[in-house]
Amino acid sequence: VAAGERPPVALDAFGIDEGAAVVLGAARILAGEGIHLRVFGSAAELGELPEGAELIATEDWITNDQDPVPAVRRTPNASVVMAAADVAEGNSGAMVSAGSTGAAMTAALFAIKRLQGVHRPALAAQVPIPGSGGRRFLFLDVGANVEVRPQHLIQFAHLGTSFTEAVLGTPNPRVALLSVGEEPKKGTADVAEAHAAMAADSALNFVGNVEGTDLFQGAADVVVTDGFTGNVALKLMEGTARAVTGGVRSAARSNPLAAAGGLMLRPALGGLRSELDPNATGGAILLGLRAVAVVAHGGSSAEGIANAVRLADRAVTERSVERTGEALRASGANRGELSANQPT
Amino acid sequence: VAAGERPPVALDAFGIDEGAAVVLGAARILAGEGIHLRVFGSAAELGELPEGAELIATEDWITNDQDPVPAVRRTPNASVVMAAADVAEGNSGAMVSAGSTGAAMTAALFAIKRLQGVHRPALAAQVPIPGSGGRRFLFLDVGANVEVRPQHLIQFAHLGTSFTEAVLGTPNPRVALLSVGEEPKKGTADVAEAHAAMAADSALNFVGNVEGTDLFQGAADVVVTDGFTGNVALKLMEGTARAVTGGVRSAARSNPLAAAGGLMLRPALGGLRSELDPNATGGAILLGLRAVAVVAHGGSSAEGIANAVRLADRAVTERSVERTGEALRASGANRGELSANQPT
Repeated sequence: VAAGERPPVALDAFGIDEGAAVVLGAARILAGEGIHLRVFGSAAELGELPEGAELIATEDWITNDQDPVPAVRRTPNASVVMAAADVAEGNSGAMVSAGSTGAAMTAALFAIKRLQGVHRPALAAQVPIPGSGGRRFLFLDVGANVEVRPQHLIQFAHLGTSFTEAVLGTPNPRVALLSVGEEPKKGTADVAEAHAAMAADSALNFVGNVEGTDLFQGAADVVVTDGFTGNVALKLMEGTARAVTGGVRSAARSNPLAAAGGLMLRPALGGLRSELDPNATGGAILLGLRAVAVVAHGGSSAEGIANAVRLADRAVTERSVERTGEALRASGANRGELSANQPT
Repeated sequence: VAAGERPPVALDAFGIDEGAAVVLGAARILAGEGIHLRVFGSAAELGELPEGAELIATEDWITNDQDPVPAVRRTPNASVVMAAADVAEGNSGAMVSAGSTGAAMTAALFAIKRLQGVHRPALAAQVPIPGSGGRRFLFLDVGANVEVRPQHLIQFAHLGTSFTEAVLGTPNPRVALLSVGEEPKKGTADVAEAHAAMAADSALNFVGNVEGTDLFQGAADVVVTDGFTGNVALKLMEGTARAVTGGVRSAARSNPLAAAGGLMLRPALGGLRSELDPNATGGAILLGLRAVAVVAHGGSSAEGIANAVRLADRAVTERSVERTGEALRASGANRGELSANQPT
């Protein structure tokens, strides 16, 4: 990438449920915004791409069923592996994949590498607060690390803070730790240890523990948890929101009066519907690497993929990675102290 | 309690947000159903109780802010401690408290004791599936044990199965393990170990791992997790459901057309509203003790407390405790094997 030029985004075209139509749609949307794509996918399926999008043809890809680590190691021509390599080689500034989350994280980690001092990159999702008029909180880790130690949780707080400041534009974001009660000692021993360290860390705007109900009252901008709890919680929130909106929809089909009411209410529900639309946020971002990697939903629409690419592009433009590295160094959170009583 | 007589339920009257009015309302509802109450609370606040309810006066109680274990130890006249002792002494058949969950669990554990072979009692909540027409799944542990080992998760599966068969009336309930993916090895090492043991356990109708979205498609009758994940998840589900229904309500206030639509839709939404009403389930039940203990919401209505007492009464009538003990013995899950590589 030449100096001063906006680097392209590497897009893994495999693993998207609706396939080529979505990729082509996203490429057309983005061409109008001056965002260049390097698309890794099937020449036969994709055909001709719009101007501003370049095809790097491959027929190999990694499915959700494959074990990510061996699959990434033994499939150098898999689209997601090529996309990650493209970023590592400096041809693209960031990568986006809607395929296997595990494969995308593994490919990114292997090729792009971690920022200095980062123990574990974390996957961060923007969670909508229903009925808030579009507010969200950043939730991490939502699945990169199912087992973590307290110092990882502390790093997640710094990664989330830097990203929220740099890319989401919230100055001095409030950071909370997800737990089973507000008191500092609530939760597991590891959570209590992380709480104490975050409270003592002047580089964090730590607001303490949060529980499920506080989250939806906008108590925090960044919510930190381990990747097991985070992944389970994210899917439960999505599942609950979908089930409740589905319940409203069935009620509006149950009799003619309700159906008429539903039609009259429908325009006013547009805001809530778009808040809850997973395509709106573009996907989760892997924080703690030397470049930007975004993991989108497999079920993304063209607009969803375009939003994922925009998120990646904005993270590059806003120097998210550099600023995260600086923040980690300034806070000392990159020093990697390990608890004496825990294995490394 | 004389043979053949239906034992009373010990009700802790402290810790209910709306206080005496709720207790008196619940007592009136239950008097009509032949359920006898022994009420532990303030004579001054409660005044005269309806027929069928007996006051055991005390002015001591344990608040949410107190550390449960020392508070229970040093306050023998606290309402919840007296209620638990009343069950242990055989005056009542079960206890219900809407006060501090920690205090209720501690008081019950100390006075009522664990069933033989049970390592850790678990708190089980009935979670509504929105839009399902009233179906629920039993979710445990929702907060009794923030750190567990695989053999605890396996016991939770047996405790949940027995209770679901005996009290909720679902024969051979499908048991699932909450994790981050469907594959047997997904999740933490402990979750994967529990998965393997549950899959090999012929006394369980184990359907494998579930994720958040499957839960709301009715994939399981009993969902097992550790008390940290379970507590966080339960509150997030409640918070999400409340935020989404709140969003629908605000939309219906946003303009006159929407308001008219909301009114017309309102009767049809009654089912969804009552599904999501926390008063409907009566509260969570502590499984694995030698008697029944139910923990209700502090915000319960009179109907909510009545439902908690009905749940406790039904558990006694259906011999939930005895059947759980028999099931644990039959399955061998009471043998208490510990993994060699884990501390006790």
